[in-house]
Amino acid sequence: MDEQITLDALACPLPLTHNEQIVLGHGSGGKLSQDLITKLFLPSFDNPILRAGDDAGVIALDAARLAISTDSHVVAPLFFPGGDIGKLAVCGTVNDLAMLGATPRYLTAGFILEEGLDVGILARVIESMRDAAREANVQIVAGDTKVVQRGKADGLYINTAGVGALRDGIHIHGANARPGDVVILSGTIGDHGIAVLSARGDLGFEAQVVSDVAPLNHLVAAMLDTRANIHVMRDPTRGGVATTLNEIAQQSNVGIVLREDALPIQPAVAAACEMLGFDPLYIANEGKLLAIVAREDAENVLRAMRATRYGAEAVLIGEVRAGPRGRVLMKTAIGSTRVVDVLMGELLPRIC
Amino acid sequence: MDEQITLDALACPLPLTHNEQIVLGHGSGGKLSQDLITKLFLPSFDNPILRAGDDAGVIALDAARLAISTDSHVVAPLFFPGGDIGKLAVCGTVNDLAMLGATPRYLTAGFILEEGLDVGILARVIESMRDAAREANVQIVAGDTKVVQRGKADGLYINTAGVGALRDGIHIHGANARPGDVVILSGTIGDHGIAVLSARGDLGFEAQVVSDVAPLNHLVAAMLDTRANIHVMRDPTRGGVATTLNEIAQQSNVGIVLREDALPIQPAVAAACEMLGFDPLYIANEGKLLAIVAREDAENVLRAMRATRYGAEAVLIGEVRAGPRGRVLMKTAIGSTRVVDVLMGELLPRIC
Repeated sequence: MDEQITLDALACPLPLTHNEQIVLGHGSGGKLSQDLITKLFLPSFDNPILRAGDDAGVIALDAARLAISTDSHVVAPLFFPGGDIGKLAVCGTVNDLAMLGATPRYLTAGFILEEGLDVGILARVIESMRDAAREANVQIVAGDTKVVQRGKADGLYINTAGVGALRDGIHIHGANARPGDVVILSGTIGDHGIAVLSARGDLGFEAQVVSDVAPLNHLVAAMLDTRANIHVMRDPTRGGVATTLNEIAQQSNVGIVLREDALPIQPAVAAACEMLGFDPLYIANEGKLLAIVAREDAENVLRAMRATRYGAEAVLIGEVRAGPRGRVLMKTAIGSTRVVDVLMGELLPRIC
Repeated sequence: MDEQITLDALACPLPLTHNEQIVLGHGSGGKLSQDLITKLFLPSFDNPILRAGDDAGVIALDAARLAISTDSHVVAPLFFPGGDIGKLAVCGTVNDLAMLGATPRYLTAGFILEEGLDVGILARVIESMRDAAREANVQIVAGDTKVVQRGKADGLYINTAGVGALRDGIHIHGANARPGDVVILSGTIGDHGIAVLSARGDLGFEAQVVSDVAPLNHLVAAMLDTRANIHVMRDPTRGGVATTLNEIAQQSNVGIVLREDALPIQPAVAAACEMLGFDPLYIANEGKLLAIVAREDAENVLRAMRATRYGAEAVLIGEVRAGPRGRVLMKTAIGSTRVVDVLMGELLPRIC
């Protein structure tokens, strides 16, 4: 066999600039896919596991129990005050892992790109993912890119999945709320939903609201370090605080009673909700958590939360009772009691 | 506080029948999302981890090293001879994990649904995922569903991510091919790509070709049980055998030489490729693997493969040489040698 064959003519790297557009070939698995990986993904997400370039990443996790989660992100618009789809995609999965008390360690990222997407937009999203991953101290160790024809997506969709290590002795679950526990909220509600709505131009005015999207794992670590009896943690994303607390009430078969006057809401969010007829209890948050903890540990947990960036405004918003089982009630500012039900329809589509 | 408030009026479960269509509310995180979970996802994917209903699944993996991978699936049409997007989504990630020699254990599933999708179609896809997961002996332990407006997706897209346990002593990577090794292929090539193309009606005739989509982890387990020196394994999906072998040649800095007359191709696939001007070496496979093994172990490995369902037609198709480095050559049936390059453009979009 003749191995003297001239191969140099084949070594013609294709350019990939920010003015370029995504073409179907970027999802082919061939040369253009490799270009995307080597010129966009690898420089931002670089780590030895990803660089190995195999079908899967090899990771080590020195824990007997792991947490695993996934989230797809389809937010429109892709960029909004305080964040973008990339930051959302990283924080969403980081927070889901953290809510079980796990230390998030490794993420995967799956991109669905629309033909014609500006490479510059993708590059900005990737940079944002890199920054969020750095802040959360997680590595993106496996990825995948598909390209669909024009009109078959909305710019780009991102799925992230992730794994985290669970410390021994940590058992935080939605079914663990007990009568007598208190309900803690890490800060103001409704910021993310209203920020995205404002960026869409759907408000009819510009609300000065910035999304709260943030990785909450360091806040959670500070809470766990108190060794308090944290029974439940959950981030009130789609469906908001109301839906999340209803889920917990049902899973734990308890009643939850909120105090309306304790709910922290930014004036601009409250104003936007009033104009639009929205209840902020149902608006999505992307950087807040609800914690249900033993009453005697509440002060300790609140102190630890308030010492962190994303828990500075943590407050006690309610308590857990024996009943009505599976229900959330709210004592309103004027002293009456109303049922806070789960979100029934669709308030704000494409919010995360 | 009055806890005697009547709550029964709220307990009105919404129907979810196969005639129904997906609406934006199914992605709201509220009542309709819960309906999807409890009426479609849970009955099929049921396991204690998923049933816990937390933001993340808690899993145990008794291995010091894990493999982790992800794949998004956007195949059009959703159903094709031999499979559908659901089977593809499960097998894709199972196979990526298996290619490192890992035992796939847990998957996550992220759905992006288009408003207006028939619930019956989603139900069929979910059943298919359940069956594939059973065959592969993996559990789907976390999920997510988003709904985008009509025209912003193509029915549904599925992302899966997964983790698997790596046995001690297994180090299979794309960079491990050595001169003298042989190249083994587990069966016929091009079946998946041609089956999807035929289902699209793009062939202009109906090819009697069935997709090879299958979970390969049991085949891989049989290969590992031989204790042979398996240096590289990879499934030649997008970009086909040609692109996959080029990646390995580059990662290992070796040359790979194929024998054209050794490549197993079904007559119907060969005929379709000839009519369309496609080279089957670039057509996607979804149930085949390439293995690069020490020459002295080849016979053992082939025997083990042929004893399994998905390796029954395994053959030796080439060998690894010192050079030309990073290149794949093919000795053709008429005795000449040609360069087999990586896929340059886009052959078949939306194939997986």
